[in-house]
Amino acid sequence: MTSLGHAMGTDFKGPPDLSGARHGTRVVVLGSGLAGMLAAYELRRAGYAVQVLEYQNRAGGRNMTLRGGDTVMELGGHTQKVGFAPGNYINPGPWRIPYHHQGLLHYCNAFGVALEPFIELNHNSFLHSTEAFGGKPVRYRDFAGDFFGYTGELISKAVDQHKLDDVMSADERAHVKAAMRTWAGLGDDGTWTKGTRSSLRRGFDKPQGGGVDGAPVPSDLLPRDEVMKSGLWQFIAFHERLDMQTTMFQPVGGMDNIGKGFARQIQDLITLNCKVTAIHQDDHGVTVTYDDMAGGGAAKTVQADYCVCTIPLPVLSQLDVQVGAPLKAAIAAVPYGSSVKLGLEFRRRFWEQDDQIYGGISFTSQPISQISYPSSGIFTKGPGVLLGGYMFGPAAYDFAGMTPQQRVEEALKQGSKIHPQYRKEFSNGVGFAWSRVPWTLGCCSMWSEQARKEHYKALTTMDNRIVLAGEHASYVGCWQEGAILSSLAAITTLHKRAVGGA
Amino acid sequence: MTSLGHAMGTDFKGPPDLSGARHGTRVVVLGSGLAGMLAAYELRRAGYAVQVLEYQNRAGGRNMTLRGGDTVMELGGHTQKVGFAPGNYINPGPWRIPYHHQGLLHYCNAFGVALEPFIELNHNSFLHSTEAFGGKPVRYRDFAGDFFGYTGELISKAVDQHKLDDVMSADERAHVKAAMRTWAGLGDDGTWTKGTRSSLRRGFDKPQGGGVDGAPVPSDLLPRDEVMKSGLWQFIAFHERLDMQTTMFQPVGGMDNIGKGFARQIQDLITLNCKVTAIHQDDHGVTVTYDDMAGGGAAKTVQADYCVCTIPLPVLSQLDVQVGAPLKAAIAAVPYGSSVKLGLEFRRRFWEQDDQIYGGISFTSQPISQISYPSSGIFTKGPGVLLGGYMFGPAAYDFAGMTPQQRVEEALKQGSKIHPQYRKEFSNGVGFAWSRVPWTLGCCSMWSEQARKEHYKALTTMDNRIVLAGEHASYVGCWQEGAILSSLAAITTLHKRAVGGA
Repeated sequence: MTSLGHAMGTDFKGPPDLSGARHGTRVVVLGSGLAGMLAAYELRRAGYAVQVLEYQNRAGGRNMTLRGGDTVMELGGHTQKVGFAPGNYINPGPWRIPYHHQGLLHYCNAFGVALEPFIELNHNSFLHSTEAFGGKPVRYRDFAGDFFGYTGELISKAVDQHKLDDVMSADERAHVKAAMRTWAGLGDDGTWTKGTRSSLRRGFDKPQGGGVDGAPVPSDLLPRDEVMKSGLWQFIAFHERLDMQTTMFQPVGGMDNIGKGFARQIQDLITLNCKVTAIHQDDHGVTVTYDDMAGGGAAKTVQADYCVCTIPLPVLSQLDVQVGAPLKAAIAAVPYGSSVKLGLEFRRRFWEQDDQIYGGISFTSQPISQISYPSSGIFTKGPGVLLGGYMFGPAAYDFAGMTPQQRVEEALKQGSKIHPQYRKEFSNGVGFAWSRVPWTLGCCSMWSEQARKEHYKALTTMDNRIVLAGEHASYVGCWQEGAILSSLAAITTLHKRAVGGA
Repeated sequence: MTSLGHAMGTDFKGPPDLSGARHGTRVVVLGSGLAGMLAAYELRRAGYAVQVLEYQNRAGGRNMTLRGGDTVMELGGHTQKVGFAPGNYINPGPWRIPYHHQGLLHYCNAFGVALEPFIELNHNSFLHSTEAFGGKPVRYRDFAGDFFGYTGELISKAVDQHKLDDVMSADERAHVKAAMRTWAGLGDDGTWTKGTRSSLRRGFDKPQGGGVDGAPVPSDLLPRDEVMKSGLWQFIAFHERLDMQTTMFQPVGGMDNIGKGFARQIQDLITLNCKVTAIHQDDHGVTVTYDDMAGGGAAKTVQADYCVCTIPLPVLSQLDVQVGAPLKAAIAAVPYGSSVKLGLEFRRRFWEQDDQIYGGISFTSQPISQISYPSSGIFTKGPGVLLGGYMFGPAAYDFAGMTPQQRVEEALKQGSKIHPQYRKEFSNGVGFAWSRVPWTLGCCSMWSEQARKEHYKALTTMDNRIVLAGEHASYVGCWQEGAILSSLAAITTLHKRAVGGA
């Protein structure tokens, strides 16, 4: 608790205190995503002898950025070559950082990773449903203005008509009426009607201008019953979610600059191309067996006193891991989400030049779910890259089942409903399906409440010499902050065990 | 009208078409704010012979930035020397640019003025009223979560209790109920109560963490009657105003980079230090008389065929201006607002480091009205400058009546209620009172509806050879976009007159 109310919104309490480590105690870290690299960094600082085994030929894990010239290979055999112009990119994994992810922000700053604002909420973006407003997109500001206006009007009128006398005092009724009128921008009569006041929220039909012909013309309202039926209010709700609130950040130049910043600290500890096959332990230590993929696949082993394992659970559950039944059950119990992201490059930033949309997200009821506009490079003249779709769940499985070309084609077809310029301006695209990534087999952990109750404690409790870390071992699932906080928790636990168990 | 609904939110239709100008037709422009400089730029491009007379010893008008080493002199005799560290600044006049100010954005891009996002809405900033919640500030996210929650709950319950059956069909009632639950984040029972769901809006008491102790603890709600009584909902409404919606921009490095960008185009046309005393006209031309303040105050005259006058009305109304009665009355009819802005430099960015506030605005019921956090330099370690107060109206008159030292002291006293770190971290400050600026005598035009009806047409109609421009000659008053749009309207009118009246 702080003096100003409840906590600041972060569970990060600063770098861990690992003092008193027995110098040279050996720790093997499996996986060089953010969780693994942070564990290696802090453990080495504390005096441990650390080595990191990584499956891929790169560090960073799901912290990735795709740029022109990159190759994406996926399970099923499809290969995509990214064709973006120099400087353009898409982040297929994490792409934004909330203000309250203080652990990640701390290490970004400590490791010299430059950050810039990520624009999340944009009042001028589009909301679209195939089932509402004749299938035409509406501006966020139009919809939000009308939704708030009608909502405020309903309560204001209900107060006037004494319908709420039973639930509030006369004093509160007066306050509620004032609140609704101010918040919703109602007229003096408490109604949401076409006119200057409503257009000062939703925008004018002829905007405010200069000179003798400068008078604005108010805009028509959307009908209340259509607003309420549309379902588009879910996208207003979206921006109020703790994880989606402003201010957000992104690394300058691509999310993988975070992974690179972490890797700079510990690159001498990482061995790439290690396909772990078994993790055994006894009273004396841990033995990790892996195929050395850079050395023709020869089986090798590493001995250590302790192991921090950050291997994603769908992969880990298929390995020979010598842990107790509770942890084994936990590893098997957590399903991973399927997610697909599409990066589409267009010859020009028509969303800025034609539609005055600078950053932010347009939402649609179509499977692509959203179109996100780049927060960087705004006002530049060259080609630009959109996030042309970001799916979770069933739509993601559908898209993952398509060829990469089909994914892009489908995204163009659906996106054209919101931006008719799509076909004319399209240059090239890439579709990244997380369920087809061999080293994670899904995008991130999707804990159910029931699974959390039954298995979370076991998953996060050190099993003799082995402790798990990663976003899956946190309450901040699917976010990089989860990897950071779980890693700090895991190495703190490991350290206590190593010192106390001496 | 566009194919996607009503207009884009801008009345800018591109650079003006001034083709067919009689080469060498002379235009004198009075004032080198944005309106005057744009008029000079476009008129010269069209072939007119332009000169600009400026009262100050600098171009830019109210487009200003204060940096360390700058001196502020004001009516009343007070002089302030700005003590900010290198790189820090405050914009005492305009400080942000809405996405729909397309005229200004167009010329910024045309003139090479680099822009960056201005962070307006910040869910983690504070809302504060001396009369609410025991005088303690609350986080925006806490208040907004509870205000939306209780509002949604009121309607959801009213629907359940059939109180709204008379105003909507059964179908719409079902939609409204679903809308309220989703938008407001209500529980399955339609209530706003303490728990995971409400804390996923307003934040947890113990935030979501990692590892075995990662479970979050929900936060307490603010009581509904206090929320409704607090008046703090006005600050939620603030962000929904068309002019305050996201995405917003600011020039990199200070607002005066716009003025400098404009001045670069036409600096050879500007004569500084000209105190205009009279503007006369007859059938043959315009004669402007001014005191040459750089030349000992000697009276001089300029002859031209036409005049674009951008002198702020409180100054213009005191000059000898030869125009008809309607324009004279209009010039006298428009009051200017008083405004004060305070720039406070602190030794470190405690709002970021202690409070996790990155850009955006905290609001208070106190006279300082708001504290705005810099959108640039986020995460830097050195001293930072806050907008420590921004007052309009009565509070501005109060602050303008104080000495600069008193203004800063008062801002520290009030700001300490929101940020207890103020006193300890304070370094230096500056208080800029627009009512004490001799060349504008107020910050900007404050048209009443009545004055608009009676005088706007006359103010914006060309009076023989003289046409007015500036934010006061627009429906976008107090914004730079008003200066841009009115300038374009004025020179289009002038051009028609010059070509047609040949």
